[in-house]
Amino acid sequence: MKNYRFLIQYDGTRYDGWQKQRNTGRTIQGRLEAVLAKLCGCPEGEIEVQGSGRTDAGVHARGQVANARMDTPLSCAGIRDYLNQYLPADISVVSVTEADGRFHSRLNARAKTYRYRIYTGDTKPVFDRNYIWVPAKKTPLYVPDMERAARFLEGEHDFKSFCANRQMKKSTVRRIYSLRMEQTGEEICMIATGNGFLYNMVRILAGTLYEVGAGERKPEEMEQILKARDRQAAGMLAPAKGLTLEKVYYEEPSVVSTV
Amino acid sequence: MKNYRFLIQYDGTRYDGWQKQRNTGRTIQGRLEAVLAKLCGCPEGEIEVQGSGRTDAGVHARGQVANARMDTPLSCAGIRDYLNQYLPADISVVSVTEADGRFHSRLNARAKTYRYRIYTGDTKPVFDRNYIWVPAKKTPLYVPDMERAARFLEGEHDFKSFCANRQMKKSTVRRIYSLRMEQTGEEICMIATGNGFLYNMVRILAGTLYEVGAGERKPEEMEQILKARDRQAAGMLAPAKGLTLEKVYYEEPSVVSTV
Repeated sequence: MKNYRFLIQYDGTRYDGWQKQRNTGRTIQGRLEAVLAKLCGCPEGEIEVQGSGRTDAGVHARGQVANARMDTPLSCAGIRDYLNQYLPADISVVSVTEADGRFHSRLNARAKTYRYRIYTGDTKPVFDRNYIWVPAKKTPLYVPDMERAARFLEGEHDFKSFCANRQMKKSTVRRIYSLRMEQTGEEICMIATGNGFLYNMVRILAGTLYEVGAGERKPEEMEQILKARDRQAAGMLAPAKGLTLEKVYYEEPSVVSTV
Repeated sequence: MKNYRFLIQYDGTRYDGWQKQRNTGRTIQGRLEAVLAKLCGCPEGEIEVQGSGRTDAGVHARGQVANARMDTPLSCAGIRDYLNQYLPADISVVSVTEADGRFHSRLNARAKTYRYRIYTGDTKPVFDRNYIWVPAKKTPLYVPDMERAARFLEGEHDFKSFCANRQMKKSTVRRIYSLRMEQTGEEICMIATGNGFLYNMVRILAGTLYEVGAGERKPEEMEQILKARDRQAAGMLAPAKGLTLEKVYYEEPSVVSTV
């Protein structure tokens, strides 16, 4: 059995997220496993595809990484082409490589970069409508304040206030290597790179920074929010469709910080 | 009755093209007219929206221009916001302005720019899948030859060979102000600006230049194709989804050539 590593892109609009579920076949993991089982000629459910992390329903990926152990006479390029032929048009396998037998896409991941897109134009974004959040209120966002708030969030902190899972028993301490804002044309992006993100953490960060940009919160409040260790202290959960997993890093964090 | 001018964007994927048809409600024109009738409180079918030209089923627009005569107490911004609220997410009105009473979006149009996108990567374009042509054969395209072929097509010519309508009785002479190729990352674009385009002309131009890029035709053949005045002489019809109407010009052509 060889261990293969996959670099995957998907438009999450039609899916119930990455992770396979009993009551629905509409997951990215489920689709990949079904096609790989077909490729290997084994019963569905026999090939297990391990992703670097789950993405929620409606969340997209440009650089999701996964791995799977399997037997096939096909070359890596052959596996990639087979997958792209049989997967739906909204899931694409960018590359397939042979990985070390011990490689595990989730356990070995050192860091991830997410991008959250907010539309700030007057009208409607036709071509990106599934990939960008269009806030209901047309409030202008003051980016310098969002930047200042982001400075308080970078570094190692207990992000319990930014975690939607209240029963979280494991550590809620994470390190954000960089949290940057990017303004281009009619959109503002939040780009977050960290060693790990809690459940809904990136979307709560985006929602909170949005409230700062809209003048509803002050940048300095971030300190109190972190201290509170209470989901109620942080801002709103920004919608799933604005979020894209951009990259998963398997190198040392020192490399990541220069990205 | 005031005459209003609309700048419109749409994702044509779900539609049977711009022009209203008896047997289907899924046209851009039909949707606009329905919402405007509602806005004016008059029966559906009473407000006529005139587009600068038809776009085929599956063709997109970033800069379609249309006009309509109507009575409403709303301001231009009010009309725009009303339209954006009631139109589906894949049609957006960028701006509404009051036009001269004689303004006619089709008859006054001096030139148009279309963009045709061809995907040249190894895999599948997930996020742009509805906006770019993915040729079935993975043939590398030689852009300098496509550029050379484009030089033969610029200027005033009889484009009958590039017209899908064989019963065309009017003149098939058109002027292409510029026909440029643009290569970025995994895509090659053809950008065509002309004083008018025949039925399917841009898509046949794209199909023919694709065949040149793939080495199936020589750039010099363009001269014979033009001379033949026969649809059979030109190349394939490239699929609708790769095509976007970028801009409609109402200025003198001399202005256009510098764009």
